[in-house]
Amino acid sequence: MHNMSFLYALDLLGTAAFAASGALAGIRREMDIFGVLMLGLVTATGGGTLRDLLLGDTPPFIFNDETYLYLSVAVSLAVFILHRQLEFLRHPLTYFDAVGLGTFVVIGTGKALAFKLGFFGAVMMGVITATAGGMIRDLLSNRVPLVLQKEVYASACLAGGALLYLLHQYTSLPHPWALLASASAVIILRLLAVQYNWSLPRAEAITTHD
Amino acid sequence: MHNMSFLYALDLLGTAAFAASGALAGIRREMDIFGVLMLGLVTATGGGTLRDLLLGDTPPFIFNDETYLYLSVAVSLAVFILHRQLEFLRHPLTYFDAVGLGTFVVIGTGKALAFKLGFFGAVMMGVITATAGGMIRDLLSNRVPLVLQKEVYASACLAGGALLYLLHQYTSLPHPWALLASASAVIILRLLAVQYNWSLPRAEAITTHD
Amino acid sequence: MHNMSFLYALDLLGTAAFAASGALAGIRREMDIFGVLMLGLVTATGGGTLRDLLLGDTPPFIFNDETYLYLSVAVSLAVFILHRQLEFLRHPLTYFDAVGLGTFVVIGTGKALAFKLGFFGAVMMGVITATAGGMIRDLLSNRVPLVLQKEVYASACLAGGALLYLLHQYTSLPHPWALLASASAVIILRLLAVQYNWSLPRAEAITTHD
Repeated sequence: MHNMSFLYALDLLGTAAFAASGALAGIRREMDIFGVLMLGLVTATGGGTLRDLLLGDTPPFIFNDETYLYLSVAVSLAVFILHRQLEFLRHPLTYFDAVGLGTFVVIGTGKALAFKLGFFGAVMMGVITATAGGMIRDLLSNRVPLVLQKEVYASACLAGGALLYLLHQYTSLPHPWALLASASAVIILRLLAVQYNWSLPRAEAITTHD
Repeated sequence: MHNMSFLYALDLLGTAAFAASGALAGIRREMDIFGVLMLGLVTATGGGTLRDLLLGDTPPFIFNDETYLYLSVAVSLAVFILHRQLEFLRHPLTYFDAVGLGTFVVIGTGKALAFKLGFFGAVMMGVITATAGGMIRDLLSNRVPLVLQKEVYASACLAGGALLYLLHQYTSLPHPWALLASASAVIILRLLAVQYNWSLPRAEAITTHD
Repeated sequence: MHNMSFLYALDLLGTAAFAASGALAGIRREMDIFGVLMLGLVTATGGGTLRDLLLGDTPPFIFNDETYLYLSVAVSLAVFILHRQLEFLRHPLTYFDAVGLGTFVVIGTGKALAFKLGFFGAVMMGVITATAGGMIRDLLSNRVPLVLQKEVYASACLAGGALLYLLHQYTSLPHPWALLASASAVIILRLLAVQYNWSLPRAEAITTHD
């Protein structure tokens, strides 16, 4: 990863954005400083950690390059202390978050390809890398994961992961270009969804005796 | 597993039943289509995945045979689109679910035996295979796992896993027969419990300062 | 571990204390007997199990020495049956819990050192070993993990894990003494926090549109 330094830079940017969103969730729930740091940390690193557990690549990436851990905690601490002064970053955070989403998807699906997973598995690893941290954040905040309820978020990841798989298996596009194209697809889809308030069809609730 | 095609057929039937119950939970919470598919998927495959993680058998079974993944998503999609028309399947679903329970238990405990786990561990792996998917479903739906609160569900799994362990260690019954007997025990216990509304003793709540 | 029999004894004491706290949480939520045993079990063994998954040391410790499993279930069963008669143990439980906390931290960080993890990773493994079981207990009880919200609990673990790492890397103190010193630090910090009602700074909640 380290020689692909552009991807690494995007990865760190995404990690910082995810940590900020986790820390904000902790602040909203009036957690103490430990809770806020912890929520920032799991949001930023939980997806990649779960991916590595599932691939059997242990210890997970965060223990091989502790940069991710220190960065997540530093960002969460800054949010804890300065969240009122950082209010002006709320709008750009949406963009950083989209960049993180795209980067995490291609890292996850790319790694799954190296582990020879099939189509479904490879796409799933991209989605897990990008969304599982946020799901753990929501579980720890005691609410239904946002990703299951609204907006074109996980589906942008699905599309990007599928694109990377297809480019990798059926074209001779060099790997870095395939990564870039797929990450861009996720980012653009996600930002269009935010801009135009796209949403997915939802089931009408049914009432049952359970 | 593939040459034991009867067990494999039961396994797929159970997977489909668990996916349907997960998808229905998602519909009840008014999730979008991604949420419904995702909940169907984790309910059907989460137990076996957690078992494989604990055994260190990675990547988990779903990545070696993607049939489980495609089947879960197809069933969940059918439930999402047709849940009103499929209402007549609600009653049979209890039976399919019981078949899945029995099958998952013997697959889990059987695999733990192959990994030389002790009695407690082997029974636990059967229970985890059969119930952890439903627990993850309930966590993601933000409620206390049903399996912890009511009915003879996990305890039927305990009984079946223990029976398989004992048959395997202390009798010369051929393995397929031991599997069949233990799975049947789970299914029968579970259906009797549904029929006669059996339940387990429950603690009186205590009030504390926590 | 077995030749360090003093540490092993403390480990079992901590396991019993954590199982009791898990079982009590299950009783408070009016779970059935299976739910109460299960909650006792995951509270007592979930942290070490997650640590072993993250380190890739599978199957986790509980499957190599089933003592932990039987002890957790026995304690949880005693709590289920006798929780009114055992009321007099509520106060001492705080002390046993603190002993468990200190012991679990040094076992977790100590194992991470053996796996050559860095500073952040090693401290994290101590914290995870000591607190993840309680977090799973709270997730299964459908509430925000206590450890994220109040009291000097996880931070005592952080301090003890960091102390052990520093003693191990930068001093020639024999390992058993380093373990003892670090565990004692956790226990003393934790009991002082209980005694004097210490708490960590908390963020003011912010209101957002999410």
